[in-house]
Amino acid sequence: MAESIGAHRRPLLPELAAGSDPAPDGLLDAVAAYERALMTNDLSEMDRLFAPGPATMRGDAAGLLVGHGAIGAFRGGRGGAPLRTVRELHVRRLDDNHALVVAVTAPRSGGRGQQTQLWRRGSVGWVVDVAHVSVPAPVVDASVWRVVGAPLVAPTGTGGLDGVRVAVKDLVAIAGQVIGAGVPEWLDEAAPEPVHAPAVAALLAAGASVQGIARTDELAYSLAGRNPHYGTPPNVAVRGALPGGSSSGPAAAVALGQADLGLATDTAGSIRVPASYQGLWGLRTTHGVVSTVGVLPLSPSFDTVGWLAREPQTLRAAAVATLGVTSVPLGGVVVDLAVLGLVEPALAAAVRALADRLDAEPVDVTGAIGGLDVLADRFRTVQAAEAWRHHGAWVTAHPGALGAEIGARFAWAATVTAEQEAAARAELAATRDALAAVLGDRVLLVPSAASGAPAASAGGPEIERIRTVTLTLTCLAGVLGAPALSVPGLKVGGAPIGVCLIGPRGSDVALIDRALDSAVLTASWAL
Amino acid sequence: MAESIGAHRRPLLPELAAGSDPAPDGLLDAVAAYERALMTNDLSEMDRLFAPGPATMRGDAAGLLVGHGAIGAFRGGRGGAPLRTVRELHVRRLDDNHALVVAVTAPRSGGRGQQTQLWRRGSVGWVVDVAHVSVPAPVVDASVWRVVGAPLVAPTGTGGLDGVRVAVKDLVAIAGQVIGAGVPEWLDEAAPEPVHAPAVAALLAAGASVQGIARTDELAYSLAGRNPHYGTPPNVAVRGALPGGSSSGPAAAVALGQADLGLATDTAGSIRVPASYQGLWGLRTTHGVVSTVGVLPLSPSFDTVGWLAREPQTLRAAAVATLGVTSVPLGGVVVDLAVLGLVEPALAAAVRALADRLDAEPVDVTGAIGGLDVLADRFRTVQAAEAWRHHGAWVTAHPGALGAEIGARFAWAATVTAEQEAAARAELAATRDALAAVLGDRVLLVPSAASGAPAASAGGPEIERIRTVTLTLTCLAGVLGAPALSVPGLKVGGAPIGVCLIGPRGSDVALIDRALDSAVLTASWAL
Repeated sequence: MAESIGAHRRPLLPELAAGSDPAPDGLLDAVAAYERALMTNDLSEMDRLFAPGPATMRGDAAGLLVGHGAIGAFRGGRGGAPLRTVRELHVRRLDDNHALVVAVTAPRSGGRGQQTQLWRRGSVGWVVDVAHVSVPAPVVDASVWRVVGAPLVAPTGTGGLDGVRVAVKDLVAIAGQVIGAGVPEWLDEAAPEPVHAPAVAALLAAGASVQGIARTDELAYSLAGRNPHYGTPPNVAVRGALPGGSSSGPAAAVALGQADLGLATDTAGSIRVPASYQGLWGLRTTHGVVSTVGVLPLSPSFDTVGWLAREPQTLRAAAVATLGVTSVPLGGVVVDLAVLGLVEPALAAAVRALADRLDAEPVDVTGAIGGLDVLADRFRTVQAAEAWRHHGAWVTAHPGALGAEIGARFAWAATVTAEQEAAARAELAATRDALAAVLGDRVLLVPSAASGAPAASAGGPEIERIRTVTLTLTCLAGVLGAPALSVPGLKVGGAPIGVCLIGPRGSDVALIDRALDSAVLTASWAL
Repeated sequence: MAESIGAHRRPLLPELAAGSDPAPDGLLDAVAAYERALMTNDLSEMDRLFAPGPATMRGDAAGLLVGHGAIGAFRGGRGGAPLRTVRELHVRRLDDNHALVVAVTAPRSGGRGQQTQLWRRGSVGWVVDVAHVSVPAPVVDASVWRVVGAPLVAPTGTGGLDGVRVAVKDLVAIAGQVIGAGVPEWLDEAAPEPVHAPAVAALLAAGASVQGIARTDELAYSLAGRNPHYGTPPNVAVRGALPGGSSSGPAAAVALGQADLGLATDTAGSIRVPASYQGLWGLRTTHGVVSTVGVLPLSPSFDTVGWLAREPQTLRAAAVATLGVTSVPLGGVVVDLAVLGLVEPALAAAVRALADRLDAEPVDVTGAIGGLDVLADRFRTVQAAEAWRHHGAWVTAHPGALGAEIGARFAWAATVTAEQEAAARAELAATRDALAAVLGDRVLLVPSAASGAPAASAGGPEIERIRTVTLTLTCLAGVLGAPALSVPGLKVGGAPIGVCLIGPRGSDVALIDRALDSAVLTASWAL
């Protein structure tokens, strides 16, 4: 890299801009040394030139890093900064030992950037105390989106969703577009869809536009939100954390403000988990009330279509546009404290406190169904059998098309026997009736996920463990075929966690209204 | 707006973050006052809280503003800042009278932002000396792109364009996509294209991918780069200036680094002018050597397909992938100093100096053709007659579909009579022969445009005047049917201006090689 810079016969820094202060002694040498270290990815030199200690800061569009260690770890992980030229250099001298340096940069790859650095002269010379970096925006965040338009599809009508921009999960048919399902080989073979899925058409008719097609975990068979082919979407709420899946793209698009509504699917938590991890509102609808025509199936016994939004009013408008408003009486809020034994203690405490504030009555869900883990196991068995029925032939014919984690999940799904499936299905039917009888018209409160978002660096076994626990919570609504609303109501250890309200079948809009009526559920941090 | 903030019952600023220094007296009051002024778009209060004088700085992703006046003008023009909440606040106290304040912000519309401000206590209290602002990236820059994919179309082969991302002007057929032509009503009526235009297919076969479909001026009938329906793409090289057109979108995409190659058209300068205004390389090809099948016509006697790039090697690879390499002997560089009388004096001086350094021989183009303005007038007449022949019926059937400027241009085109067209065409044919005889195999050097990029705020009459002068330069290659290469070689008053090399027909690749051999044409500022 040093050679390629030299080959351009360009000094590392330009003359100071007109109006700049004279630089204090030694400052420009340090600025040039930093630029050289950046361009050659000399990590130890960059570490040396940033002030040691926990208060050093470096911020960019992805968030603020605080502490020399966090900054060094970030640099170590990015594999070098983009090559650039410093076009303009401004120095603001504060005193002999402090100066602010503002650089306008021209990345080799186009566009313009800016770097603002507070330099301080300490015992070891000049070091950076605070840095703020801007780089040109990418054309599109390919971890979030596959296709984006301005808009991709215009509204067909006007109504409650006027001006709302929709991120459509890459499982749902848009006329003229293919379904990619998060798998490159699937995408390559797909033919354009002849018509919009009814779930898309309903939103367009109410005034929404389709902004684009957003990423999904492979074939939607995951809750993590990490795709080995297209990268991991960011989690705006927790830098460096997983976004949650499988509706990872629609959720990230909405959290980033790149869409207002995500149109997504939820079989086993694929809307509720990313909503929880990212501080969004998310609704898994009553099973069967939104058409799944034009939606790639995973497990039709549990597959539902629903939405994610930053604002509950947007979510409500999407539900009303698709379902209409039906009057469903809702009883009080109930909570099964035994369920909370599954989740991390701080979260359990937060849910308990919330239940108190809501005067939630106790309910014995666990007893009615013979143990949550047994329920989740049966759910997973039927889900796997159906997933293999729909995708097994394709997966078999395309060895290597899936990443290791989802590949292993399908390999396990292939082993589920017809007898196992039939037994699990019969037991689930009985459990559903018992559960529905216990709950009646009441609203069951559970956490939307077992924890805040795991780190994006979490290993496969850790992800599998988290999925198992989370499924134990999310399968309740799946088994019931009931609507489940994730409300951004809790924060544990700095990370958002959703409060999930499970209502009787058909209470989709009523659940949103209940949450909107309940001030305690609209915690201020989520706004 | 003040009400909506109050309604959220949220203090304007959070507690100082852990590890923050204590704030000097009065600083937080000033920071809060600024936040309040920003949220209520109180321009005079924001002006008061930024330090007066020419050295105050404010930078963001669009560039650095220097001077209190420039910053105030920017604020006055943007119509208010996006609503946001300050999530984290860090103070770095430098001395009693200086502090750096870093704020992590949560825009109401999603995502995260950052604001770094250097505050100084002067005689009137605390003021901002330097500010650096990051806001979330938009999903896509809709002034530059209509549709973007990751990629939109994958390569079909491998070769000299491996890894190159192409921005395709919205006039060129991509299978399965419509052609929008920069006009919403045209877009609404367009049917998907059945196959790729050959010009697209050639790039895909050589390893390029299509990144997306980029904006054009309405029906490509302009050189300004301003579309009344979709906005004006930015000019990365000159903040606040027009990008040039009609290939405004592909050029801006390449300058921004959002694509590596623009596939575009040039009838009367539509590649050369945006290349010139934005410091890019651009090639108008020999008329007829690149198929215009699948390309919306404007004036087929002059319409050509060509490319824009940041790097000449990318441009050359596109030309070779499409045309192959043909051995065309090129003579020396010639210049007609009379042509320079058309352009602004500083530009004329720069071209004269360049001609000297290249030992360019004088040539009498003007004499051979009986005056450049006469030539341009004939060119415009034939162009208008053909434009009306192709689009007149549609324009007539869609009153109001075009903006005022291009609408007026078509209205004038409608008035060109068959006799006027025939006369102009006959005269152009004679001129072409005379001009070709004078030039032989030599390379004519002219400026690519008559000036640097005009301000984006320029009025219609000013734009029309600039177009008239620029056409007088650009029509030379148009009349000759000759290739014309715009090289980012000059800078006048801080703005790039291209050097245009016009070679004999068929010398497309040879022209690029000539420019690459000539160090003086690869001015360092453009790299």
